[in-house]
Amino acid sequence: MIIVIHCNDRIGLVAAISNILAQQQLNIVSMREHVDIQESRFYVRLQVEQGADEDTLQQSLQSVLPADANIIINPLPHKKIVVLVTKEYHCLTDILIRNYFGTLGASVLCVIGNHDLLGDICKRFGIPFYYITHDERTKAEFEDKVTAAISLHDADYIVLAKFMRILSPEFVARFPVKLINIHHSFLPAFVGANPYKQAFERGVKLIGATAHFVTNDLDEGPIIAQQIIPVNHTLTAIDMMKAGKEIETSVLAKALRLVFEDRVFVYKNKTIVFE
Amino acid sequence: MIIVIHCNDRIGLVAAISNILAQQQLNIVSMREHVDIQESRFYVRLQVEQGADEDTLQQSLQSVLPADANIIINPLPHKKIVVLVTKEYHCLTDILIRNYFGTLGASVLCVIGNHDLLGDICKRFGIPFYYITHDERTKAEFEDKVTAAISLHDADYIVLAKFMRILSPEFVARFPVKLINIHHSFLPAFVGANPYKQAFERGVKLIGATAHFVTNDLDEGPIIAQQIIPVNHTLTAIDMMKAGKEIETSVLAKALRLVFEDRVFVYKNKTIVFE
Amino acid sequence: MIIVIHCNDRIGLVAAISNILAQQQLNIVSMREHVDIQESRFYVRLQVEQGADEDTLQQSLQSVLPADANIIINPLPHKKIVVLVTKEYHCLTDILIRNYFGTLGASVLCVIGNHDLLGDICKRFGIPFYYITHDERTKAEFEDKVTAAISLHDADYIVLAKFMRILSPEFVARFPVKLINIHHSFLPAFVGANPYKQAFERGVKLIGATAHFVTNDLDEGPIIAQQIIPVNHTLTAIDMMKAGKEIETSVLAKALRLVFEDRVFVYKNKTIVFE
Amino acid sequence: MIIVIHCNDRIGLVAAISNILAQQQLNIVSMREHVDIQESRFYVRLQVEQGADEDTLQQSLQSVLPADANIIINPLPHKKIVVLVTKEYHCLTDILIRNYFGTLGASVLCVIGNHDLLGDICKRFGIPFYYITHDERTKAEFEDKVTAAISLHDADYIVLAKFMRILSPEFVARFPVKLINIHHSFLPAFVGANPYKQAFERGVKLIGATAHFVTNDLDEGPIIAQQIIPVNHTLTAIDMMKAGKEIETSVLAKALRLVFEDRVFVYKNKTIVFE
Repeated sequence: MIIVIHCNDRIGLVAAISNILAQQQLNIVSMREHVDIQESRFYVRLQVEQGADEDTLQQSLQSVLPADANIIINPLPHKKIVVLVTKEYHCLTDILIRNYFGTLGASVLCVIGNHDLLGDICKRFGIPFYYITHDERTKAEFEDKVTAAISLHDADYIVLAKFMRILSPEFVARFPVKLINIHHSFLPAFVGANPYKQAFERGVKLIGATAHFVTNDLDEGPIIAQQIIPVNHTLTAIDMMKAGKEIETSVLAKALRLVFEDRVFVYKNKTIVFE
Repeated sequence: MIIVIHCNDRIGLVAAISNILAQQQLNIVSMREHVDIQESRFYVRLQVEQGADEDTLQQSLQSVLPADANIIINPLPHKKIVVLVTKEYHCLTDILIRNYFGTLGASVLCVIGNHDLLGDICKRFGIPFYYITHDERTKAEFEDKVTAAISLHDADYIVLAKFMRILSPEFVARFPVKLINIHHSFLPAFVGANPYKQAFERGVKLIGATAHFVTNDLDEGPIIAQQIIPVNHTLTAIDMMKAGKEIETSVLAKALRLVFEDRVFVYKNKTIVFE
Repeated sequence: MIIVIHCNDRIGLVAAISNILAQQQLNIVSMREHVDIQESRFYVRLQVEQGADEDTLQQSLQSVLPADANIIINPLPHKKIVVLVTKEYHCLTDILIRNYFGTLGASVLCVIGNHDLLGDICKRFGIPFYYITHDERTKAEFEDKVTAAISLHDADYIVLAKFMRILSPEFVARFPVKLINIHHSFLPAFVGANPYKQAFERGVKLIGATAHFVTNDLDEGPIIAQQIIPVNHTLTAIDMMKAGKEIETSVLAKALRLVFEDRVFVYKNKTIVFE
Repeated sequence: MIIVIHCNDRIGLVAAISNILAQQQLNIVSMREHVDIQESRFYVRLQVEQGADEDTLQQSLQSVLPADANIIINPLPHKKIVVLVTKEYHCLTDILIRNYFGTLGASVLCVIGNHDLLGDICKRFGIPFYYITHDERTKAEFEDKVTAAISLHDADYIVLAKFMRILSPEFVARFPVKLINIHHSFLPAFVGANPYKQAFERGVKLIGATAHFVTNDLDEGPIIAQQIIPVNHTLTAIDMMKAGKEIETSVLAKALRLVFEDRVFVYKNKTIVFE
C-alpha cells in the first residue's frame, strides 16, 4: 500500500504519521520524506507492507495532521489515462505496447487525435480512437469537443503524447495537475519555428526532452523528468529530430512511471520526485 | 545535524525515532528510510534543522531502539583521511585540491606512497608524504610499516587512491569498513594482466570505474559508486587507460562525498546509499 | 549511396578510392576511415551524394584495391531480418513498431518463437510468426526446424531479441556475422543463474546491456553497442530486471540502426563502428 | 603528424589530398572527413604515421586545393595557453594539475585574475599569476591591462576558466577563435541574476555546462562541448551550484583536449568536432 501526504510543515509530523501506522500494525518498508524549508512544506511517501482499511486510516491520519493535509492512500496504484496525439507515433506506441502487456502501471481508456494518422495503430490494440479535427473549428469549439470526449472517461491523467496544438488557459484550467506533456529541450533554448533547424545551425552537442505538468503559470509547468542525448555535426536537422524522438519516448516513459507510482508531488511551479 | 541509524527491523521504529526528535523540538528537514526486507534490516538517515546535546539524544534514541542499533550523530560531519598511492596522480590530486580549498568534506592527514613520485605534489600542498617502499621487504613487513604510519594519525577512512599493491587479509582486517578503493571495471570483465589491452582487442564500447569498501569476503567489497565513460575503436589501449583515469577520478570523488556526508551504510556485502 | 570497404592496409588506399570516385563525378559527403595499426587493416565508409552504376563502380574499385578487399555498395541501404524470440516482448515490440512505421531501416520478414506467447502481437502487425517448440526435440532437431524456417526467407540478419536458448556451434556457423544478440551485462560480471538476484545482493549501482554478433570464438562475440542504466538499493531484484529490459531495448535499437546503416565492420573478435 | 584542412567543397578534394600523401609515402592512420552540404564546406582531419617536411607538404597540398583552403600541419600538437580567472578555483586547478603532470596537451604560460584569491595556488605550481583588478578602472582600461599581460606571452588560446567579467566586443575582436569559455546551462534557460536559485525554484532535473568559443555574433559562440549532470529536489540552490561546478570542470577539460588535439573546426557560428 502506498501513502502520500503533503501539508504545511511543523515539528512532529513524522512522529504523528508513524505512530498511527505503528498502532495499526503497519510496517514501513520504504519512506521518502522531504521538507522544502523555503516553502515550509512537508512531503512524505510511504510504502507499507500490509493492507489496511483505507477510510479508517485516512481518518486517523487526518486527525493528527494539519487541516490542509493532502492525504492519498492507494491500496494498489493503477491509474487510468486518456492520450492526446497529433501525427507522431513514438510516444503513443510506447504507451500502447506497455498497456497491452500490462506493464504501464495504468490503463489507456482512449486516444484522441486531431489528425487520423494514428487511428490504425490504436485499432490494432483495441483502443478506442477519437478523431477530432481542428479544421473549420475555432479553438474553443475544438477544445470543447476534446473535453467532451475526455469526459466520457474517468481518467486520472491526460497524456499529451506529442499533441501539437497549443491549449487555451480555459482548457488547461479544467484539468489541474492532470495534463502531462513531453517536449524537446535545447541548450541554449531556441525560440520560434523549427528548433531542430536552429539547433543544427548552432552546432549543439546535446538534445534534451522535458516531461512536465501543463499549467497556465508559465510557458512550461512543473518538471517531472528530463534527459538528454548527445549529438554532433554529422547529424542533419532531420537526424537531430529523430534523436529527439528517441529521448522524448524515454523521458515520457520515465515520467509516467514516476507519476503512476505516486512518486511525484506538485506544489506551486515545482515538483518533488521521490525516484 | 545528521543522524544515521541501522538496526534489525520491527514495526514502530520510525515512530520511536521521530517521537524522540519531536520531544526534543528537533525538526526533520530530510529523511531517507529503507527496509531491506530480505535481511529485515532498517536504515535511516535524518537531517535535522537544529543542533542538540549529542549524548542525551544518543541515550534517548538507544532507549527506544533494538539493542543492536548502530546510532551515529554527527553535529558537523567532517572526516579525517589518510591516502595511499602508488604512481598515478589523478585521484590523489583531485583529493588534494578539494582538501586545499576546503570542499572535500574531510581533512587529508597524510599521504603514504610505495613509490616516491607523488611526494612533490603533496609537498606543494603542505601535506605530509611517507615514502614506504615495498622493495626488499616482505608483504608483512611492508604492511606493518604502512600500518605504523597510519597509526600515527586518527583517520576515519583510508583512501586507496590508485594504490596498486594487493593488501593481505591481515591488513584489511585491521581497518573494517574504513578502506575505500577505486578501480576500473569492464563489460565484460577481463581477468589477468593489462585489462586495457584486452578491452582494446575486444572492442569494448564502455569503460567503467567502481569505488568500494575493501573486505576479505570477495575479490571486491561493498560497492559505493559506479560510473562509465563511452569509448570506441579510435581509442588505442593507452587512450582507453586515459579515459579510465578520468572516470576513476570522478567516481572516487563522488564516493568520497557520499561517505563523508554519512550517506553510505554497509551491511554484509552490500551498501545502502542515500544519494 | 553508401560504400564500405575493408582490406589489408597499404599506402595510397584513400587516394586510390577517392580518385575512382572523382573520376565518376561522385562527391564524398561523409567519410570515416580507420586503420587498425596492430592488425594493419584498413576500413572506410563513404557516403556519396550521387548514385552510380554499382557493377561498374565495384569493378573500378576492385581494380585498384588489394585482392582481399571487401567492397559493399549500397544504393539504398535497407535490410531484411528474421527475429527470434522466447517470452519477453520488449525488444521485439520496439522492432515491430519501427517496422510498422517504416523507421527501422529494415523489413521484418518473420518472427520465430520457441514459445507462443508473442504470436498475438506479431499477428496484430501482420508479421508471420512461427512457433517452434524445443520441447520433445533434441537441440539439433530444434535448430534444424529453426534453420528451415529462416531459410524460407532471404534475411540479411537474424536478430535474437531475447531468444533464451543457447545455440550450438553448428547453428552459429551457418550464419556468420548475421546473428545479432542482446543481453544484460553487469559490473562485476555475475556467472551462474539469476544474475539480477546476484546484482541485487551485491548492491550494484549500474546495469548494462551489450548488443553483439554471435560467434563461436568466445562466450560473447564482437560488441556492437553497450549502454548502462543507474540503479540503487531501492530497486528489488525484479525492479532491476525491469530496468535491465529498458536498457536492453535501447541498446538493441541502437545496434540495429548502426548495422542497418552499414556503420559496423567486424574483423576477428572486434568491431569498428563509425557512429 | 596531424593535418587539418577546411575549404569550400568540390569534387575530388579527398583524392587530391590523399594523392599528395601517397606520393610522399605518408600512411593515413586515421581520417575524419565531413562536408557541410548546406554551406558546401569541406573539413578533414588526418593523422599520418610518419613525419614529413612541413613546408614542402604545405605547398604541395596548397597547389591542389582551392585558394581559400585553410591548412594546418602539426608535427607534434602542443599548444600554449593563458588562463583568465576570477574567484572560483575548480576549472583552474584542473588545468594546473594536468599542466604540472604533462597531460594537458598544452603549456600554461600564465594566469590572470581580476581577484587575487587564486594567486597562491598558481604560485604553488610555479605559474606566473597577474592580479589585475577591475576596481577603479573603466572596462576599457581593465581590458587594456589584461591585453597587455596576454601580449607578453605567445598564446594559442586564452581560456576563460570561470572568468566572470563580460568582455567588450573590442576585446573579443582582438582574439578571434582564441577565447574559450565555460558556463553553466539550464533547461529551460534562465535569464537574469542567480540562475541556480531560479533552477532550484523551478525544480529542474538537469544542470548542464557548455564550453564554447567567444564571439560577438551571439550571446554565446560556437559550442565545443556540452554535458549535463542530473539533480533533484533534495539539492539546495547551493548544492546545485556545487553540482554545476563538477560538470563545468569536466566539460572544460573535454573541450580543451579536443581543441588541443586539433579536433575542432569553427565555421560561422558552428563547430565541427571530430571526437
